[in-house]
Formats: sequence, structure tokens, C-alpha cells
Amino acid sequence: MDHKEREQLDVNGIDSVEMMDDMTFVLFGASGDLAKRKIYPALYNLYIEGKTPEKLSVVGLGRKPYTKEVFHDIIKESLETFSRRKADPDKLEAFLDQFRYFIFDAMEAQSYQDLKAFIEEREAEIGIPDNRLFYLSVAPTLVEPITESMNENGITNTEGWKRLIVEKPFGSDLASAQHLNERLTQVFNEDEIFRIDHYLGKPMVQNLESLIRPNPILKSIWNHELISNVQITASETVGVGTRAGYYDKSGAIRDMVQNHLLQLVMMTALHHPEKLSAKEIEERKTAIMQSIRPVTDNIEQHVVRGQYEAGKLDGEALPGYMEEDGVAEDSNNDTYFAARLYLDNEYWKDIPFYIRTGKRLSKKSTQIVIEFKNEADEAEVQQGVVSNLLVIEINPNESISLRVNMKDDSNEHFEPAYVTFSKNLDDQPEAYENLLNDAMGGLSTYFAHWSEVELSWKWIQPILEAFEADQLPLHGYKAGSQGPAAADDLLKEDGFNWW
Amino acid sequence: MDHKEREQLDVNGIDSVEMMDDMTFVLFGASGDLAKRKIYPALYNLYIEGKTPEKLSVVGLGRKPYTKEVFHDIIKESLETFSRRKADPDKLEAFLDQFRYFIFDAMEAQSYQDLKAFIEEREAEIGIPDNRLFYLSVAPTLVEPITESMNENGITNTEGWKRLIVEKPFGSDLASAQHLNERLTQVFNEDEIFRIDHYLGKPMVQNLESLIRPNPILKSIWNHELISNVQITASETVGVGTRAGYYDKSGAIRDMVQNHLLQLVMMTALHHPEKLSAKEIEERKTAIMQSIRPVTDNIEQHVVRGQYEAGKLDGEALPGYMEEDGVAEDSNNDTYFAARLYLDNEYWKDIPFYIRTGKRLSKKSTQIVIEFKNEADEAEVQQGVVSNLLVIEINPNESISLRVNMKDDSNEHFEPAYVTFSKNLDDQPEAYENLLNDAMGGLSTYFAHWSEVELSWKWIQPILEAFEADQLPLHGYKAGSQGPAAADDLLKEDGFNWW
Repeated sequence: MDHKEREQLDVNGIDSVEMMDDMTFVLFGASGDLAKRKIYPALYNLYIEGKTPEKLSVVGLGRKPYTKEVFHDIIKESLETFSRRKADPDKLEAFLDQFRYFIFDAMEAQSYQDLKAFIEEREAEIGIPDNRLFYLSVAPTLVEPITESMNENGITNTEGWKRLIVEKPFGSDLASAQHLNERLTQVFNEDEIFRIDHYLGKPMVQNLESLIRPNPILKSIWNHELISNVQITASETVGVGTRAGYYDKSGAIRDMVQNHLLQLVMMTALHHPEKLSAKEIEERKTAIMQSIRPVTDNIEQHVVRGQYEAGKLDGEALPGYMEEDGVAEDSNNDTYFAARLYLDNEYWKDIPFYIRTGKRLSKKSTQIVIEFKNEADEAEVQQGVVSNLLVIEINPNESISLRVNMKDDSNEHFEPAYVTFSKNLDDQPEAYENLLNDAMGGLSTYFAHWSEVELSWKWIQPILEAFEADQLPLHGYKAGSQGPAAADDLLKEDGFNWW
Repeated sequence: MDHKEREQLDVNGIDSVEMMDDMTFVLFGASGDLAKRKIYPALYNLYIEGKTPEKLSVVGLGRKPYTKEVFHDIIKESLETFSRRKADPDKLEAFLDQFRYFIFDAMEAQSYQDLKAFIEEREAEIGIPDNRLFYLSVAPTLVEPITESMNENGITNTEGWKRLIVEKPFGSDLASAQHLNERLTQVFNEDEIFRIDHYLGKPMVQNLESLIRPNPILKSIWNHELISNVQITASETVGVGTRAGYYDKSGAIRDMVQNHLLQLVMMTALHHPEKLSAKEIEERKTAIMQSIRPVTDNIEQHVVRGQYEAGKLDGEALPGYMEEDGVAEDSNNDTYFAARLYLDNEYWKDIPFYIRTGKRLSKKSTQIVIEFKNEADEAEVQQGVVSNLLVIEINPNESISLRVNMKDDSNEHFEPAYVTFSKNLDDQPEAYENLLNDAMGGLSTYFAHWSEVELSWKWIQPILEAFEADQLPLHGYKAGSQGPAAADDLLKEDGFNWW
């Protein structure tokens, strides 16, 4: 099958992976939480679906002195606990046989020399070329030294292809992100770097494109002349938990906004009714990020930051952020962030995007709401006519609904009715399956490209500085509430409210 | 409340009845089937909802020598059998007290004189002005003589208003319809004549307008640039039954096409996103009817007629039309009719309307299907992408659905998913309730105006003549089937198929 045919057969209209090169998957952080919860289950499900290479060598690295057998037991336990498919005993052995464990100390040069030999030995053993995918599931501070040491020790010096997968965070501000990228690109080209933003792996985010394209009637609804505003929400019910060490320095702005929320803004604004190539999507997303109007003056008019206070959820008393373990005594950290964005491009001109995220809110929900202009006159408003909504629920449920006005039983008033477009999405692949499959196949569509990341940091930077200089009010909000009232006012000023 | 306020409060955007004049409702055919099945239940339900005049005199006319008490018993039985609301004992007496019976012979002048006195006596008795609504639920041949005799005997000579409700058929061809109308309009003005087409009373037909107007996203879907064709179906499973005496002369073309199907074409093509007055709706419907391209030459290229043959439905053997009681031995009557229509106006230019109706088909269903252009390329078609549909089901269920393409579980193919916009419509008013309420309030929006009726007959006339001259093939189709293959070919030629 030639490339053209492959493209034609692809439902997404985006290059998909049909044939996969044999390769080595080098996993740094093999005993870590992410590996157990996401990476092993994803690899297993891809394996079951025939979406991994015919010959695959997985080398798991960690400091702990595991044997191969112990490592295999860890993977088995991970599958039992976290895989959406139950492990099939007939297939499990062959799957596990791909995995080897290598005891590794990232700070020791000898470790890299030994790793190189270990990888090469396995390559020779199973007869595969030196195509190498390096997955750095490690602390952010280790990304740069590991990459450089791999380079210095020739691990990345392959005749086959090499690729790097990095997890968030990618830097902690504009300068550090630029610095990190500069270092990484001395070893890997941009098209060899796969920056994971797992929101981009979520089926409903990926579905956005395949939902609209084959349905002219949905294309016609998604019309900027009809849209009054866009609302993107990622709310959590959990608090900072045990992560205060990281979170108290990061805040919602780095943890959620610079990456996930801005990626959702780009994906929403992308609006590509025609088939686009991966390259075109990247270019368009970059152009969108570039078009977001900078917020540099009067930041408090466009941005709301908040911090949760003691409150209640489902009858349970919850502590305030300042009472959480590991939070600095004088912390002015943001656990809530809301903002109004304008995209200065032809399509989204004058249509505000509202984004918000926070911990300890009343509901766990990631969703995109497209609100349409309400052309009802006063009498119709009295009769109950409300604006139409297109609601794309990403998490925890996946659905797409329309809110329309239907006559009620009296035939004299309207009431809003939600109609849902989705069928059962129970068995959708996990985000990490989609992402690993793409990375193994070399498709970067659903990864954060440097241009996007850098522009995100550029947009965030002045807000970050204002936060750090404490120039904005830090609005308290009760744990279990909808967030600070100031975030409601942000929309009220424009005549809207959060849905 | 002044007229303006009333209009503003109306959900339909069409004048609705708020206050109703006291009146006499003169019902010719009070012991007939229609009265029992539809008119009494409709009046009762309107009464319960407070939608009848404060003071109402109903005078039921018939040849049978009923007493008032027998008449009341007939009404009671009608309510028990046919009313959507159970008769409330507390309210029944007051409801029945409005009804009087008058023994009437339409062919005797004295009867009219006595009727006049009877009506006037009741008017005086309950103290109401001489507003009179005459409902002619009688054989078509009686409409003209009754109207003329009422006029000659001064019954229609009132100081208050007078109105005439007539049932179908309105004429049996263009000339007879014109003749009938000419006679009626010597007694009643056009705006005093309410020609019932009960399809226009059906909630879903009336909903068409209130569904789209308050929902910008539905307005945007209903876009002629997106629509490839429109299909209007009214299929029955029943045969001619005991009605061969009428039906064998009428055929599907008079029984269903000239009135119901063409009214549905007008209502569908109306497409009025803005509030329209009753007058504007009438004008637009007339303009639409006028725009339907005449079918005068090569009629068989646009029209298919059929007649059912012996067949089977749900395991039951069914006779052919020629074996039915009362059918002429040499009958070439049409029990099936399908046609392709073009509306020569700016909006519907080049978008074919396909209409079909028939007896003894596989399914009882009245529906309007808007099919949208399928822009899928060949690869997408292979992946299962089909055209989007907007399906408006009018009978026996009432619903509005969209057909969209959703990815299937494999994530590699699409499958059509239907999403339904309606909420439960179980307790919707019956068509006759809507229509009687409007007629009593003097609102003619959902009645067939003469201009529409005359243009319908004008469009039908050449086809009628071709049928009578047997110039078209009479396609046989098996009882219980989907109709003749020739009707499928009509769409196949254009690249479509019936939904």
C-alpha cells in the first residue's frame, strides 16, 4: 500500500500509522507511577490491536535493582490494575518477552555506556535496526542531563531514526522553556521531539475533527457568525494532595493553563472543516496561538486568580489550601485561574474565549462549550428561549450535545432540551494509547510543537510575573464551590455566564 | 390586553387565540363519524383548557330523530372512546349543557327556517350575539346546497361574524373546485371560509416553525445550499376498506396528493426563519405553490402511479385492489402516487422534492426528510460516510431527528447515528383541537386558502387528465411492499433513494 492509499483510508484525515518500524522503546522511569498507570497498559492495548511493531525491544530503566522477572511482575500488576482490557494469558508471555529491565543511574556516565551496550545487544539479539524511541518519564530536572548524556555517550547516535518523548512540564517560564528546548534541539531535531500534552490524546479532543468534517450539518452549525463565545473549563474536585512540593511553585497557571487549556483553545479555534495534514495543523495551531491578544496591562481586567479556602463537598469538610501539607506559610499560589482571551484573527474576531481551571471545585469536568448568539427578543426570552449550546464533554464522560429550545407541554413556553450526539464511547482508547501509537509511528499531530509551547509561554509570561509580584488580587473561594465570584463577573461584564 | 401584547406572548410567532367571542357552533353531521371521533373530543379538550368561549351554543344537526338526552349520550360515548383526556364528571354536565340537537333535512327549506329560529332562540336564551360558525361535516355534494339554502333563509345574514368550516374534498378537479368556491364565496368571504386539511393541524407540522425560529443552530442547518433533496412520504398500511365507493373515483391523487402532500410541500418549502403574520404565511405558501414547475408533457418521467396487488403484511395475506369490494371491474384507479417536483424559486432552485403516498404499503408513516449534500470523497464513502438527514416524523410518532456520521468502535469507520430532538410529545393536542381552536378564534393560518387550493388543482389537473385517459403505466405493487419499483427509479435517476 503506498502512502497515498494509506492517507485515503485514514478516517481522521490525518496521517495515521499503518506500518511500524521495528524499534527499541527506551523507557526512563520504568518503576514510576506514570509507567504503571498509563504506559504499560497503553503498550499492552496497542499490542493486542496489532498496533506495535512486529519486533519491539522495550528497555525499562530505573534505579531500583529489579530482575527481569520482578519487572515483568510489575508490568503484569500494572495491567491487572489499570488496563482497559483484561490481560489475555495466551498473549501475555509474548508481550512481556519484549521487556527488559536495566538498572540505571542518570548521574553516572558509566550507566550510559552500559545502557548503550545493553540496547545494542538486544537489537542484535532480536535483529532490529537501531531505531530508538526515548521516553523520559522522569523529574523535569533530569530531562536535560539525560538527553545530553545520551548524546555524549553515543546512545542517540543511530543510523536508524531516533525520537524523544518528554512529559510536562516543559520549562517553568519562557526563559527556562527556551533554554530547555535549545539544549534538547542540540541532540534531537524538532520533528524528533514529542512533547506530551495528554489532553491532546483524549479521544474527544481528537474526535473534534472527525466529527465535523463528514457532517455538513455540523459544519454549518460551527459557524463563527453564529457563535457568541467559547468557554473552556477544566475543573477538579481534588485538592493539592501530596503534590504541594511541586504545585505550590507551579500553580494552576503552569500546571494547567500554559499547556492543557491553551492547547484546548488552539484545538477549538483550529476549526478545520477540510482534511489537513499534520504539518498544516501545526501551522494553523501556531498561527492561532500567535493571534491570541497579549495580556500585559490591566491584567486583572482579563485574568482572575484564586485560592481555595476551607469548605465542604458532598458533606465532607475540606481544608483550605493554606492548611495543606507542604504549602508555604506565605503562599500566594493560584489554585484557580480564569481568563478572557481574544483571538485577533478573521475567524474568531470579537468572539471571547473564556478559560478556567481550578482545584477543589464542585465538579470534575473538562469541557468545551460553544455558545451561540441568542437572537430571541424580550418576549421570547420571557417564554424561556435561551441560547443554543454545543457542549463537548472531554472528561470524565465523553459526549457531544446540543442544547435547543423545545416547546414545553403547555405549548406556550420553551424549555431547553439537550440532545446528545455521541454513541457509547466506553471502549475508546486511552489518551496514552493514541499518543504512544502516534509517537512510535512518528506522527506528531497530537503533540505540542515547540512553536506552540514557546508562544504559550510568551502569552503566559507577563501574567506569571504579575502573579509572582502579587499584583493581582488572590480571590478566595470555598472548597466545593464554583470558584471565585470574580470569575463570574468576568463573563457578566460581557453579558454571559459560565455553563 | 391589546392585540400587540397578545402577539408578543404567542410562542408560535403566529396570531394565537387569547380571548374568544361568544358564538354559536352549528354542526352539520352531528351524528356522523367525524363528529364522534374528532369534533366532540376536540371541543371537550378545548373546553377543559379554557379555550372555548365563555358562552357557547353548539347546535348539532342530523336527520336522525335524537332527543337532547340521546345526543348528550352520543357525545359522552364519543368522549369515552376517543378523547385523549378522560371525561371529568365534575365538568361534563356543564360541557354537555352547551349542546342542543336539531333534527334537520338539508333538502327541505322549512328545515332552514326552523333552524334559524332554533339558533336565535338559543342565542337569546343564553344571551350571546349572532356570531355563527358553521361546520359542514357532510357529504361533499351537500356543501353547496346547504350553504346556499342557509343564505336564502337568512341564517348566514348575521350582525355578528359568520364563518364556514368545510372538510375535504374541496372539488374533484380544477373546474369543480372553482365552481364550488364561486358558490361559497357568494355567501362567505374568503377570510370567512376555513377549509380543513387536518395535516395542517398536526402538532409536528405546526412545530416546524417554532422549532427553527428560536434555535439559530437549526436555522443554520436548514440551509438550501446544504440540501440535496426533500422527500415527503405519507404511506398507509390499510387498503381501501369500505370506502371503495368514494376512493375508486378519487384515487390517491385526489385523496392525498392535491391536498395533504401539496400542503406539506408548501409548509416545508415555506422556511420562514422570522416571525410571519398569518397573512404573510398565506402569501408565501401561495407563491410556493405557484412556483412548482407544471408537469404537462412527458408526465411519466416525473409521476409514477401504482395499484396494489395481492400480497402479505405481518404474515397476513391481503387481497389486491381489484379484489376489494366496490371496486369497478375495469378500475385503473391509483392507490399509489409518487412524483418529482421542482420549485422554480430562488431558494429551492434545483433541489428536487419527491413526494409519495400509497395504500397497503409496508409501513404507516408520514414524514418529511431533508437530505443534505454528501461531500464525502470515495474513500470516505468506503469508510461508511453517508449523507446527513433531518427527519421530521409527523405520524404515527412525532419526532425530529438528525442523522450524523459518528466513528464506530474500531475508530476506523463511520456509522450513521440518529439523534432525536424531540422530547415526549405524548400529550400533544390533536390536530382537530388546534384547528377548531383557530377557527373559533378566526385564525386561518393552518387552513387551506383558496389561492393554495386552486393552484394545487391547477398543478394536479394535467396529471389527473393523463390518469383518466390512461396515458401512464399503472404499476402493480404487492400489498405490504414499499411500492412500485418505478418510484425508486425516479430517485435513482438523480442519484438518490427514498429514506
